[in-house]
Amino acid sequence: MELKDIYEAQKRLDGTVHHTPLELSETFSRISGGKVYLKCENLQKTGSFKVRGAFNMISKLDLDDNAKVFSCSAGNHAQGVAYAAARRGVKAVIYMPLSTPIAKIAATEGYGAEVVLCGDVFDDAQAAAKAACDEQHGVFIPPFDHEDIIAGQGTVGLEILNDMPDVQTILVPAGGGGLLAGVAYAVKSLRPDVEVYGVQASGAAAIAKSFGHSPVGLDNIFTIADGIAVKRPGNITMKYINDCADGILTVTDDEIASTIISLIERAKEIVEPAGAAGLAAVLCERYPFLRGKKTVCLLSGGNIDVSFIHKIIERGLVSRGRQVRLSVILSDKPGSLEAVSRILAIHGANVIAIQYDRVNAELSLNETILHITCEVSGVEHGKRVIDALKKAGYKLQ
Amino acid sequence: MELKDIYEAQKRLDGTVHHTPLELSETFSRISGGKVYLKCENLQKTGSFKVRGAFNMISKLDLDDNAKVFSCSAGNHAQGVAYAAARRGVKAVIYMPLSTPIAKIAATEGYGAEVVLCGDVFDDAQAAAKAACDEQHGVFIPPFDHEDIIAGQGTVGLEILNDMPDVQTILVPAGGGGLLAGVAYAVKSLRPDVEVYGVQASGAAAIAKSFGHSPVGLDNIFTIADGIAVKRPGNITMKYINDCADGILTVTDDEIASTIISLIERAKEIVEPAGAAGLAAVLCERYPFLRGKKTVCLLSGGNIDVSFIHKIIERGLVSRGRQVRLSVILSDKPGSLEAVSRILAIHGANVIAIQYDRVNAELSLNETILHITCEVSGVEHGKRVIDALKKAGYKLQ
Repeated sequence: MELKDIYEAQKRLDGTVHHTPLELSETFSRISGGKVYLKCENLQKTGSFKVRGAFNMISKLDLDDNAKVFSCSAGNHAQGVAYAAARRGVKAVIYMPLSTPIAKIAATEGYGAEVVLCGDVFDDAQAAAKAACDEQHGVFIPPFDHEDIIAGQGTVGLEILNDMPDVQTILVPAGGGGLLAGVAYAVKSLRPDVEVYGVQASGAAAIAKSFGHSPVGLDNIFTIADGIAVKRPGNITMKYINDCADGILTVTDDEIASTIISLIERAKEIVEPAGAAGLAAVLCERYPFLRGKKTVCLLSGGNIDVSFIHKIIERGLVSRGRQVRLSVILSDKPGSLEAVSRILAIHGANVIAIQYDRVNAELSLNETILHITCEVSGVEHGKRVIDALKKAGYKLQ
Repeated sequence: MELKDIYEAQKRLDGTVHHTPLELSETFSRISGGKVYLKCENLQKTGSFKVRGAFNMISKLDLDDNAKVFSCSAGNHAQGVAYAAARRGVKAVIYMPLSTPIAKIAATEGYGAEVVLCGDVFDDAQAAAKAACDEQHGVFIPPFDHEDIIAGQGTVGLEILNDMPDVQTILVPAGGGGLLAGVAYAVKSLRPDVEVYGVQASGAAAIAKSFGHSPVGLDNIFTIADGIAVKRPGNITMKYINDCADGILTVTDDEIASTIISLIERAKEIVEPAGAAGLAAVLCERYPFLRGKKTVCLLSGGNIDVSFIHKIIERGLVSRGRQVRLSVILSDKPGSLEAVSRILAIHGANVIAIQYDRVNAELSLNETILHITCEVSGVEHGKRVIDALKKAGYKLQ
């Protein structure tokens, strides 16, 4: 791959994918002490950058009208290939593991692809996809480890340099490494002074482990960031990453979850967990060399299920002190609930769940525990509520 | 107010507020049978259009260095005035009711304003704000009923016509009517063929009730859309609305909530309830004359608390069949829970809450009811789970 391949990819993609916005975030800039820009690939067609590489590769194929492309993915690559094939006018067959959420199947079919559900785990689905592809003389579109895929993803780097010539640091979420390889190669070819870091989930940091040598696989991975949960990076992606990236950072699932909430609250942006990894590296404040820089955080995708947003917010509300859970020991007699409720009401705590526990070994027979979950405006408010209960003589567990 | 006042407002705002994006939504276009564009004022500075009117009015004032502006708001207007005053270099004092959420206070103070918490209800806070303003010879910045405010909001209309000359219909969320008056006046002055509708929450539809004559107040209002929960529209706003708007539509809170989820899922946009009203009028399918048109839905603001998103998603997951609540009658003996759990596991239902009820009057002594909440992929999946339990001989309540 040469730089001209990425420029050619950019020409091919023009009119089919978005040149996505690059947004300054004043809030995140304040936190970082520099300037933080968000590169919004979550607003890309199909909801992620994956369509860039898929369309670039499919566009270059010499295909007749009956040609088929095959792929295997439970996520964004499936939608990228489906959309790209439809735009190119060829048929796509996407293999997905049996456990794939129905919304992802529907989205892939919605772009006109045939979906084959097959295999309990990803590897089984991929083996079946490759076998069917060989048998039907199709072309297999891999998720990351191919120069045409890497060149397509690299167009994100060209857009960043074009829109923000004074960028100093670029943070790229990385799983298989296609996006990181493409962006790092494009950026370093044009602007060796700009630093490019990959960011991985700490529970699936195969590129971090492989950095500086050939790919190393992990036996087990565990992260909420399904889009970058890859056991082994590619041979080709790893070569470009070793040549061009300045380092690989890791972030925890809690840091990712907290970043998703901050993006919703402050930037009004919906990102999937993988897409939040780059910004999480800035917000976690564990990487002091990121401070005070003009930084682009690449929001790689936005395909997050609302039920997952629900869970992340739920956890975030507790960890940020917006919900407080109290266990109050009461006398087991009429009027006890009313007395506690009055204190909560006076102090503006909104009860959202309540439960009695009478069978706790630590209680005497005329006591009961009331487990109460309240909404409060923050940690301070929660403390005021707790203090008021204590002051009224209640024992809290 | 003349059209030139809106053009002058646009010049004043240039460089201070965003010319916000106008995004085509393919999903919503498909639903509407036309083309649906989203005008993203949720991505505006301070998270809503309010900053436009506030900055226009404050810019026009003849103020010395010690001048103060006053306002009263529990919401977006507070942040708009605070930001506008800071940019103009004058001091802002914002009165907010005592019940104002701490996040809104913090955001307003974050823009450099002094916040005075005062009064149990909005009217008390406003009376105090006006009294303090008079006493200190300040200037009061009203939320909607002033020509400079209306002219500022009208710049949204100029941007829409500029970016999309072939627009046919514009849907504008309306509470006090400042945004609707400004947009309708700007658009009709330039393009009388473009239809402009106000959209109100059905529980707070004072403009709908006032349309065609002078303002009528409502005694009680009830809606989740706090940004457009206004009891009485303005005298000035109502005059422009009567002259220029083509009609006032209403949408229910459920329609608004469902639209918020759809915007998150499909457009990756965070909007507050008021901001979703315009699109809700398209998606609810109760207004057939909106079908097949080139429509702009104005997303007026994005300042929604994450805990509220949490509640909306929670309700949405149930109403869309993504959560199913089962009450299963069991024998009260060891192994019963395991037997039910196995059926749920086999059918891929993820248990998220479970509770025993032994004291139900309809039960015999050796029975218990198990209340189970499960995540499923949709209505069909939920039915399969229920059928499997019935087939295994379980009675479901």
